Amino acid sequence: MKIKSTLLALSLCLSFAAQADNAPKNIIFMIGDGMGPTYTTAYRFYKDDPATKDIETTVFDRILVGMSRTSPAKVDGYITDSAAAATAMATGVKTYNGAIGVDEHKHPVETLFEKAKAKGKATGVAVTSQVNHATPASFLAHNEYRRNYVEIAKAYLDSDADVILGGGQKYFSKDLVNQFKSKGYRYLDNINKLDSVKSGKVLGLFANVQLPWVVNEPKAHKLSQMTQKALELLSQDKKGFVLLVEGSLIDWAGHNNDIVTAMGEMDEFARSIKVAEQFVKQHPDTLLVVTADHSTGGLTVGANGKKAWHPEVLRNVKASPDRIASKLNTVKKWQPELTSLLGFEPNKHEWNALKKARAQGESEFTDEIKRIIDIRSNTGWTTGSHTAMDVQVFAFGKGYKKFIGSQDNTDLAKKLESFL
Amino acid sequence: MKIKSTLLALSLCLSFAAQADNAPKNIIFMIGDGMGPTYTTAYRFYKDDPATKDIETTVFDRILVGMSRTSPAKVDGYITDSAAAATAMATGVKTYNGAIGVDEHKHPVETLFEKAKAKGKATGVAVTSQVNHATPASFLAHNEYRRNYVEIAKAYLDSDADVILGGGQKYFSKDLVNQFKSKGYRYLDNINKLDSVKSGKVLGLFANVQLPWVVNEPKAHKLSQMTQKALELLSQDKKGFVLLVEGSLIDWAGHNNDIVTAMGEMDEFARSIKVAEQFVKQHPDTLLVVTADHSTGGLTVGANGKKAWHPEVLRNVKASPDRIASKLNTVKKWQPELTSLLGFEPNKHEWNALKKARAQGESEFTDEIKRIIDIRSNTGWTTGSHTAMDVQVFAFGKGYKKFIGSQDNTDLAKKLESFL
Ligand SMILES: [Zn+2]
Ligand SMILES: [Zn+2]
Repeated sequence: MKIKSTLLALSLCLSFAAQADNAPKNIIFMIGDGMGPTYTTAYRFYKDDPATKDIETTVFDRILVGMSRTSPAKVDGYITDSAAAATAMATGVKTYNGAIGVDEHKHPVETLFEKAKAKGKATGVAVTSQVNHATPASFLAHNEYRRNYVEIAKAYLDSDADVILGGGQKYFSKDLVNQFKSKGYRYLDNINKLDSVKSGKVLGLFANVQLPWVVNEPKAHKLSQMTQKALELLSQDKKGFVLLVEGSLIDWAGHNNDIVTAMGEMDEFARSIKVAEQFVKQHPDTLLVVTADHSTGGLTVGANGKKAWHPEVLRNVKASPDRIASKLNTVKKWQPELTSLLGFEPNKHEWNALKKARAQGESEFTDEIKRIIDIRSNTGWTTGSHTAMDVQVFAFGKGYKKFIGSQDNTDLAKKLESFL
Repeated sequence: MKIKSTLLALSLCLSFAAQADNAPKNIIFMIGDGMGPTYTTAYRFYKDDPATKDIETTVFDRILVGMSRTSPAKVDGYITDSAAAATAMATGVKTYNGAIGVDEHKHPVETLFEKAKAKGKATGVAVTSQVNHATPASFLAHNEYRRNYVEIAKAYLDSDADVILGGGQKYFSKDLVNQFKSKGYRYLDNINKLDSVKSGKVLGLFANVQLPWVVNEPKAHKLSQMTQKALELLSQDKKGFVLLVEGSLIDWAGHNNDIVTAMGEMDEFARSIKVAEQFVKQHPDTLLVVTADHSTGGLTVGANGKKAWHPEVLRNVKASPDRIASKLNTVKKWQPELTSLLGFEPNKHEWNALKKARAQGESEFTDEIKRIIDIRSNTGWTTGSHTAMDVQVFAFGKGYKKFIGSQDNTDLAKKLESFL
């Protein structure tokens, strides 16, 4: 028995040793913006089938390998923004909050994408924010400040990225789009046209700024569709590719302290990870790494002294609170429709609060809807900004073992670059 | 180059294969009660040397390997208490909140400790709560309800545990102590006598209920001392041992939403882990696994819309808020002493609030001190109870690889038992 298992371990080891020097040809790097560990736990409960005895595991549980430490350069304390964190993960360098691909002294630092290009690999991004938002920008551009959106969009011209998919029409003038076309990009302004692209470079901007909340178009599955298409296009490069996929709006929902919307964004991000996981299974020379840049909102699963959380409340809500408020703000018979959209009948106390808030304005009405959902689900929040808690690292495919354990977010860049 | 590294990988693999069938002889299982991922992140910042450019890593960062899913049996929803979680980790069975070593039907389930005893191994616990509190009780006893403290204390007589160290004199009558003595236990009621014990069974109860907060006796280092002595005694067993160490009061400080006291408890727990880590280095046939049962308080590092956390505030506080309040509640010249104990001079607004709260009573005074510390450090809380967020798993030594990735808390028991 002992000899047998020793031999088994040995043969496994031999096959490992044979691969040990082989870097993955393709890298899929996925970032859930703001997706701290509370989000993945909440998401598991959100997807739990109440009819079964067990809590079903998720794709996150399947591929968890470690955690990442997210603080920015010390000049900005302990809590990062998306720009500093993405720059750390794109370049291996700690920087100040707001920095896009530049170091503390505002000097450009070579990115993972630039190094991949230098090796002849294809690169691409697929995100749910505007494509020139902080996270993708830190991989594709260098700018001293994240909000220089127009400059960043222009800089994308020089990135030579093969696939750029997301929102952001607002920041790409007709002239700029024409320059992309001159460089050989096909330009799409509607995601329905994505199917028709079979090869070549593509710039697809499918919203003025960010894409719509997933809860408001639950069957659209845009991020997973963009992920699928990006993989199809990039995998045509014989030397391999690096793809960045971002579930950008998890963070935005977190800033809004909007648990319903956050769970919707998580669900589409998880679906996109499954698309990537499937690709890795079919292309074993691929590495998939998933992480977050920080956590947002100080979300807690359980609050207010009660050992309970009620995801069933969230599952029944049929639109985002902001959408519900804007829709019902001027409608006369708003109460039956609100009951239907919430998936529950508010009690007398809740109706009173809702009426009062609605009279005050759309923003107050939105807040009151969120407040009632938080109380019914027993969800907690402590901030409209970010918190510093280590985030998880998930990895699957060739080279995934490098990501086991605790690492700095700059180590993620260094490890990925070591494969180029 | 490629052949060389292949050979290196092969030789590493051969040495691994040679060990593959070897279970560790000794198991050290350490639980930070309530120590969710926010606590270990906060602790890193708390220990950070502000004079250096980097944030120094901690023992937790060194040995992180995965996470654990903590929900109790579905009858109790998604958020566990310490009893259900400890029973899961001691027996591999999900149960209801409050259960001590029994399943959903209140039937006793064999524990890791009982299985170890059956194999001739020594067992022991070292904790900072009363020794018969939920976590150690779930390894040493079976009871339908965690608060049956006297019954649980009596049940310890039959556990045959070799080392029982912590607080809880209140629950051990003179008669019960005599019964332990008849069974060959040496009884200690003072931790200073611990040094004199060189072998044999020991019951050491060093407080009426729980041990004092670490911040109120920063040089005592009781948990690490108990850990060291437990290892010394248990390692005399030729067949090996299983030791449970609990940083019990991290949770209690979390329930109180008391960040200063929580960081003190974290610090002594970390010191105890280092003692265990050192033991593993000297006894490589030992496995160390560290985890938490759940997170407490909904702690967030950063709050109130500000991207900042200020551990320097916490480092300067010289006693726990409850100790400060009880000490200064009846002193006439309390203000200079409060300034000295807090490590900062409250501003005018803070003095007004402190005066008002002090006039209302000791409990209100304590709360106001905590509130000011939370605001100055920008610490967030959402509950006085537990939250459900996956907790981390740390492992080091022989067999540590089994704990890589995401696992259910019941899997921890199953994996540990597989080594017996
Ligand atoms: Zn953000
Ligand atoms: Zn507790």
